[in-house]
Amino acid sequence: MNNNYNSDTICALATGGGISAIALLRISGDRSIEIVNKVFSKNLTKKESHTVHFGNIIIDNKIIDEVVITIFKKNQSFTGEETVEISCHGSKYIQNKILEILINNGIRLANPGEYTMRAFKNGKLDLSQAESIADLIESESEAAHKTAIQHLRGGFSKKLKLLRQKLIDFASLIELELDFSEEDVEFANRNQLNNLLNELKSEINVLIDSFKLGNVIKNGIPVAILGAPNVGKSTLLNLLLNEDKAIVSDIAGTTRDSIEDEINIKGYNFRFIDTAGIRKTDDTIENLGIEKTINHADKSNIIIYLIDASQNIDNQLDNLENLSKENQKKIIKVINKIDLNKNLDISTNEHILISAKENFGTDELKNRIFDFTNLNALDNNNTIVTNQRHYEQLKKTLSELKIAIEGLNNGLSGDLLAINIKQSLFHLGLITGEVTTDDLLSNIFGKFCIGK
Amino acid sequence: MNNNYNSDTICALATGGGISAIALLRISGDRSIEIVNKVFSKNLTKKESHTVHFGNIIIDNKIIDEVVITIFKKNQSFTGEETVEISCHGSKYIQNKILEILINNGIRLANPGEYTMRAFKNGKLDLSQAESIADLIESESEAAHKTAIQHLRGGFSKKLKLLRQKLIDFASLIELELDFSEEDVEFANRNQLNNLLNELKSEINVLIDSFKLGNVIKNGIPVAILGAPNVGKSTLLNLLLNEDKAIVSDIAGTTRDSIEDEINIKGYNFRFIDTAGIRKTDDTIENLGIEKTINHADKSNIIIYLIDASQNIDNQLDNLENLSKENQKKIIKVINKIDLNKNLDISTNEHILISAKENFGTDELKNRIFDFTNLNALDNNNTIVTNQRHYEQLKKTLSELKIAIEGLNNGLSGDLLAINIKQSLFHLGLITGEVTTDDLLSNIFGKFCIGK
Repeated sequence: MNNNYNSDTICALATGGGISAIALLRISGDRSIEIVNKVFSKNLTKKESHTVHFGNIIIDNKIIDEVVITIFKKNQSFTGEETVEISCHGSKYIQNKILEILINNGIRLANPGEYTMRAFKNGKLDLSQAESIADLIESESEAAHKTAIQHLRGGFSKKLKLLRQKLIDFASLIELELDFSEEDVEFANRNQLNNLLNELKSEINVLIDSFKLGNVIKNGIPVAILGAPNVGKSTLLNLLLNEDKAIVSDIAGTTRDSIEDEINIKGYNFRFIDTAGIRKTDDTIENLGIEKTINHADKSNIIIYLIDASQNIDNQLDNLENLSKENQKKIIKVINKIDLNKNLDISTNEHILISAKENFGTDELKNRIFDFTNLNALDNNNTIVTNQRHYEQLKKTLSELKIAIEGLNNGLSGDLLAINIKQSLFHLGLITGEVTTDDLLSNIFGKFCIGK
Repeated sequence: MNNNYNSDTICALATGGGISAIALLRISGDRSIEIVNKVFSKNLTKKESHTVHFGNIIIDNKIIDEVVITIFKKNQSFTGEETVEISCHGSKYIQNKILEILINNGIRLANPGEYTMRAFKNGKLDLSQAESIADLIESESEAAHKTAIQHLRGGFSKKLKLLRQKLIDFASLIELELDFSEEDVEFANRNQLNNLLNELKSEINVLIDSFKLGNVIKNGIPVAILGAPNVGKSTLLNLLLNEDKAIVSDIAGTTRDSIEDEINIKGYNFRFIDTAGIRKTDDTIENLGIEKTINHADKSNIIIYLIDASQNIDNQLDNLENLSKENQKKIIKVINKIDLNKNLDISTNEHILISAKENFGTDELKNRIFDFTNLNALDNNNTIVTNQRHYEQLKKTLSELKIAIEGLNNGLSGDLLAINIKQSLFHLGLITGEVTTDDLLSNIFGKFCIGK
């Protein structure tokens, strides 16, 4: 798609906005160099693309700041448009003042995501690549980063375009049949079409299935900590959180907002959920708490069931009966407080022994959690769907494909088959942006931050 | 000064650190290009200074990010050293990961202010200019920005160096006398020396006096709002604050952390202090509140005395007797709630009539506040001292000058005069960095943020 769009010159802050050593303002559009040139101490009009120029931003004979300006000529920038970047001192006053100056000289403040939208409209990125930029910026774990950069690099798009092209080829053969409809010819071999549709169906099924993983990679893999009251659930959680924070702070000078209950294990984020203690009871109020706990268990990929080594272990294991079969499959049994019961005689295959108090056994616990998720399988570069919108369009594609397959099996005529095949193409095309609407675009890019 | 220093290669994040469209990492030192080259997808070793290169940061065959790299060759950068800037996507994961990669390849994380310290040590800036960078970054008002950029541009340094040079010339003549001390000659004309010392004394006095203004420009001009209980002090303050915020938010898309009680009037920040109501009373506890109020008044440059138009005005004016003569000079009398007493018969020269409730009269009030401070006088480009350290060194210089002048008037010999003149030179030199110590430098630059 390359429809016309408003290509006036836009500006925005691309960096964080607070006080910092340096801030970066980005200007994109046909008049970028011309307008910045009016307020810069050196003449930029004849400078080459990809060059850097030190000088002053001057307005009314007053120096606003000493800045470094980078020039990107048309077709050689991120947006595909002529682009100027101003690297200024990171005071809020200066950042606002320079924006104000640019606006007063006829540059418009960019809308959220407008740079990336322009890059898309100029064919620099397809839609799914453009969307992955937002994911990339928000990625907090190695895994989320990995899937985002894979999408940015076009891995996902390439796969979809390949599938779509196969379908387009058949669709045009069917269209051809329609032109000759009175002659009852079949240009599109029905067996081959059936094979293709089934092949597409199974490939799209794999992509749809990957979303479950993609979604947890993006948002953190939920882990519920269950156990009777006072078995040390909060102590364990705090211990894991503190270890994680210590690792992060090893990269000196880098800051990370603490995410209350997220723990990074081997590059993946796990969202730990502390729950109310569970035990057999007839008390109504307590049962409500247990219901909530079971709800947490249902939504988790992993359940850590914590057992107190100093109490009767069998009794505590009995509580697991409260959980559904499905939930029981997710359980890792962890025996805590082994410092209080050092002669414990129990299988260490089935149970992990830890002492949250004495910080013993947490490494093994983390390894077990990681192995449990089977995340290593990710490393073979399978395509993972992470975006809710893509997921929904894939489901719609699948639904159309199923109808087409059914129709084909029932000997439906080409003109009717064509409807569902075209719908499949439409939904697939919406993902990569080969098909698009203004509403869709403003919906996607409106969620971006300003400056991107 | 240009003593040796550790010129190993350093790196740090130069932008805000949070999630943003773009983040900027800065690398400075002899091995900058060599090391970045190891993890970049293109060969940077033969690229020109001030050029920009798009490519990938790659480690273990994995793409970490698509980045834009800018190269500054030795003697052509801010620090004076070979410098590389990496502009990456602003995810916290990517920022930390690239820093980690650089550190693993032998680049050290920069200390706070280390870039600016290197710029100073390489003679790119003098000390007072280097210090002004921290002020520039923190400047929140037009006025604070103006003085900071004036200092960065070297206005203050030039003035000091000129004064110091004059003194050095005399000092060397006196030194010469000491070499010929047995011959009782006077190379340094005592009348001229006396004139010079007095001239210096008066110029330094002006600079010292300017600090009072410089300090309030930097930190906001304190304004106390006084008045009897319930005259509408808080309502007025909220009204002024909201108007200010509305103005700020006019520059769409720019954010500014709200500073609880700071209001910008014509480019200057005023710090408004709401106080407990004052009235004549014998109550001990209430008197304590009044004492605090008077304390606020003492520390303010301006006192807004708020009067309730619907109450007896003379009674309220009587309360002003509580204030010292000094404080009475700072008063702007403001009559509030004129909506409740529209037929009020009172001089509008001496009083400003407002209705905080109906938002009437606030423009006039702000004009009066601004005129009161005589800040317009600033526009004639006088040098303003804004830095506490400079202020203290100027006071020490002055004290030495006074002793020298006294000694001169008492016919003190050259060798004794020389001591105080050298001390004056020492303190002046500490400001611009012509004299310096490692302690001084780590003290100054340690207060900078990392990345500057």
